[in-house]
Amino acid sequence: MRHTLLASVILTCLCLSAADAGWPGRRRSCPGSSLLVAPDVSPEDAVRRVLSDQVAAWNKGDLQGFMAGYWISPDLSFFSGKERTRGWQATLERYVKKYRSEGKEMGKLTFSELTVDVHSPEAALVRGRWELEMSKDKPGGLFTLIFKRFPDGWRIVHDHTSG
Amino acid sequence: MRHTLLASVILTCLCLSAADAGWPGRRRSCPGSSLLVAPDVSPEDAVRRVLSDQVAAWNKGDLQGFMAGYWISPDLSFFSGKERTRGWQATLERYVKKYRSEGKEMGKLTFSELTVDVHSPEAALVRGRWELEMSKDKPGGLFTLIFKRFPDGWRIVHDHTSG
Repeated sequence: MRHTLLASVILTCLCLSAADAGWPGRRRSCPGSSLLVAPDVSPEDAVRRVLSDQVAAWNKGDLQGFMAGYWISPDLSFFSGKERTRGWQATLERYVKKYRSEGKEMGKLTFSELTVDVHSPEAALVRGRWELEMSKDKPGGLFTLIFKRFPDGWRIVHDHTSG
Repeated sequence: MRHTLLASVILTCLCLSAADAGWPGRRRSCPGSSLLVAPDVSPEDAVRRVLSDQVAAWNKGDLQGFMAGYWISPDLSFFSGKERTRGWQATLERYVKKYRSEGKEMGKLTFSELTVDVHSPEAALVRGRWELEMSKDKPGGLFTLIFKRFPDGWRIVHDHTSG
């Protein structure tokens, strides 16, 4: 019960924080993050930086930092198994339920076998493998990500994960 | 045993047929197919036509026709669950093993909830849901496809499926 309450508090804080950051006002709330696009950074490097920032955030238990890699929009799409999740908010809630609720843990995340294909100056495909080192097991699998470039940086607009 | 032999024969025939069709000489072997790109067809329509041709081929038990929607290349990539398959040949073998070997059936395929996003004149993203109506059950799930445009048509270069 205490954990459920804790998850609700975390969820509320993350939502308020996201709402406060606004769209596209995240620039103000994440100084120094990879979401600030320097003009001399290639699309591939910018995309890889978003991913490495996501991993670093996850491994600090910072779900808000991890979620900053996703497009804050009701049109974000997230596929896992048979389940289709629509929107940044619902995707956040899915992560909270799966990794921050009672009896859950975030574990240590690693990405490997990454390939980045830049389709245009505005869109890129990323393929790779994920693994979570938990206290008792090591779930893992594959992911396909579509990144789009927005005025203030590259973000994931579609995530298909399986394991 | 007889079915295993049958699967091997089918596989060999499909491979010989693909080799005969050549790359990019498929034009000769598939008259009237969607792989012939008419200049007045939009990328979205061309991509949707490849998918509807795949469904029609599958539902006639024509695995060769279905496989014509994929890029005939060792660089084709196919993700399912935790399993990463590389190359057209290995992808064909996976389908044969899963749907044409002893005790297996192809069932009736449907795609639904399709969205097509054209990223550039050369690349498109397709998302959707698949379902197979088998004699005893109805497996299904989601897919993310990346299409690329080649001189003789649009083909799937990456398929991530889950269910």
